[in-house]
Amino acid sequence: MTLILNNQDVRDLITIEDVIDVLEFAYKELAEGRGALRRRSDTIVKSDTAPGAIYSLKSMDGVAPSLGVSAIRINSDIITHPKVGENIRRVKVPAAPGERYTGLVLLFSTGTGEPLAIFPDGEVQPMRVAGTTALAAKYMAKNGARSVALIGTGWQAQAQLRAIDTVRKIADYRVYSTRKENRDRFAMEWSEKLGTQIRPCETAEEAVKEADIVLLATNSIEHVAREAWLEPGMHVSSIKSPEISAEVINKCDVAVCHVPHGRPTLEFGDGASLPNTRGLDVDLLAKNIGLDDMPTLADVVSGRAEVRTSDDQITCFLNILGLGYQFAAVGSILLKKAQAAVAGREIPTDWLTQTEVP
Amino acid sequence: MTLILNNQDVRDLITIEDVIDVLEFAYKELAEGRGALRRRSDTIVKSDTAPGAIYSLKSMDGVAPSLGVSAIRINSDIITHPKVGENIRRVKVPAAPGERYTGLVLLFSTGTGEPLAIFPDGEVQPMRVAGTTALAAKYMAKNGARSVALIGTGWQAQAQLRAIDTVRKIADYRVYSTRKENRDRFAMEWSEKLGTQIRPCETAEEAVKEADIVLLATNSIEHVAREAWLEPGMHVSSIKSPEISAEVINKCDVAVCHVPHGRPTLEFGDGASLPNTRGLDVDLLAKNIGLDDMPTLADVVSGRAEVRTSDDQITCFLNILGLGYQFAAVGSILLKKAQAAVAGREIPTDWLTQTEVP
Repeated sequence: MTLILNNQDVRDLITIEDVIDVLEFAYKELAEGRGALRRRSDTIVKSDTAPGAIYSLKSMDGVAPSLGVSAIRINSDIITHPKVGENIRRVKVPAAPGERYTGLVLLFSTGTGEPLAIFPDGEVQPMRVAGTTALAAKYMAKNGARSVALIGTGWQAQAQLRAIDTVRKIADYRVYSTRKENRDRFAMEWSEKLGTQIRPCETAEEAVKEADIVLLATNSIEHVAREAWLEPGMHVSSIKSPEISAEVINKCDVAVCHVPHGRPTLEFGDGASLPNTRGLDVDLLAKNIGLDDMPTLADVVSGRAEVRTSDDQITCFLNILGLGYQFAAVGSILLKKAQAAVAGREIPTDWLTQTEVP
Repeated sequence: MTLILNNQDVRDLITIEDVIDVLEFAYKELAEGRGALRRRSDTIVKSDTAPGAIYSLKSMDGVAPSLGVSAIRINSDIITHPKVGENIRRVKVPAAPGERYTGLVLLFSTGTGEPLAIFPDGEVQPMRVAGTTALAAKYMAKNGARSVALIGTGWQAQAQLRAIDTVRKIADYRVYSTRKENRDRFAMEWSEKLGTQIRPCETAEEAVKEADIVLLATNSIEHVAREAWLEPGMHVSSIKSPEISAEVINKCDVAVCHVPHGRPTLEFGDGASLPNTRGLDVDLLAKNIGLDDMPTLADVVSGRAEVRTSDDQITCFLNILGLGYQFAAVGSILLKKAQAAVAGREIPTDWLTQTEVP
């Protein structure tokens, strides 16, 4: 039987601690050459579904043989790029029936090849991003880091908060977002959930001042972080390349990227293009920061790359390209827990396999 | 509802003519810039499932907006490379429950993003390969071509035979395969099916002598075609790069490749590797034949590339890299016919979509 799980199953079955643990194992495996991946590709055409929209088929593959699984994560999206304030944002349109989004993970067995599980990516997505950010902060933030500035209040930001809280003893949280009502609501809601006071800030500068850890978790495709923010000992992380400029990255003593060549393969048809903003020119960014030679998270977790040599250094983690490999790792835990809990729906594996040699 | 179809549905619903027609449309679309694709990737690790085996996660993406669909084709395979006679072959192990193989196509709507259908690739695979070969022969073989030599007797060869028979008036068929019992059985069986005499040959040379069209359809990963075979006016096609050497290709007056850069992205982990044979060094082949500058099938079908200028020229078609785009095109026809026939099984599309923004 092949398991079909949903986002509620993911919420019920796995915790952010599970995710961080399995990712830590998986990055060590990757550093030691066990594990393989094909980086993300976006195949893009124009879309008639919304004015100025694009259709994007995004996919990424990963194989984690020590965990017995491989995964492919697929997103089939209608995307628009509206201008919000001064910034251009990337907004997905819920165009599937029932105003829904299409993002799937297919998990396969490396032992038999068979499809083990299919689940939507919506709940795992922020967990794996936040788990990765937290894992980097665990290894990279200075000893005794205790204050965190969170920039952004969306679902990625919420996940980052939960994740950082599990890897470091944080006593002081601040949050900033461009909309006052969002940051106030976020601070109130999450102060209660974490049982720690979270302070909403009027400006990003106020939030980051004297913060040991700065977590950028916006959906901006223009620069967010400023050089003037940086203070000795600070650790800054970003979940998408536009958030942080080459100038800011180059001012850090240590910069680590999630994966080598941290950018997707882009294929266009139908005259489609992406908005021409400074933040989205990742090739230029890559050139300006030496992205292709930068140590990766796997290097850091495995101890192969030196991280910080003093508590005064400024470190930076660019969590800027997702991996199918992460979905394989998290999927392996999800599957185990789902099997133990007899959760999810089943379809016969025979529906998805064949006697014909393909 | 999302349709789950099986190989029997594919056999019941679509014909090779359907496949050739939709591919012809799709390559014109591609030539005119409508349509986009991400080429095949193989992500490979070692496998304990069989001695010397590898595990390979293969994927390829395509978007055909004029047909309203995108597709991703995924293969999750255990593969061995046994030596058969003088040649090394690539053999998939049916390791999934019930001794089955795992190859899937997921078809999405470019209008809504939703998953429209899921089906195994086993039956579409030879149809799209053979349909592509036949389409090339339709445009590239000389006027009045009437004799065909088929090298190989497997399922790819069978599909090639059915396909070539629909695009050209063939009066003379010959078949060769290394095993006598295979070629004799094949000739008998298919003579009856096509209602035309097919002659089994003792040697490949005998089969190709004075043939207007030579179809290589083996699973050899060593060279099969010989320079000495080539005669004025001949059209030769190959379904995998090892079948045909740079020397043979360079002796042709016109060589056309299926797609630009006709080779997959390879990613290895776990110390895995592919067998080191002459035939598999596609980068070397590419360099020796100028693959990256070669006209493609889309160029030929759209009339953008000149094909043959006389019936004496020797032409060659390298059908050496599959495209998710082909599965999108064929999938669009399959879906229409399945909907009309109320065929297949259904699962709720909500199982595969989500309200969470991924």
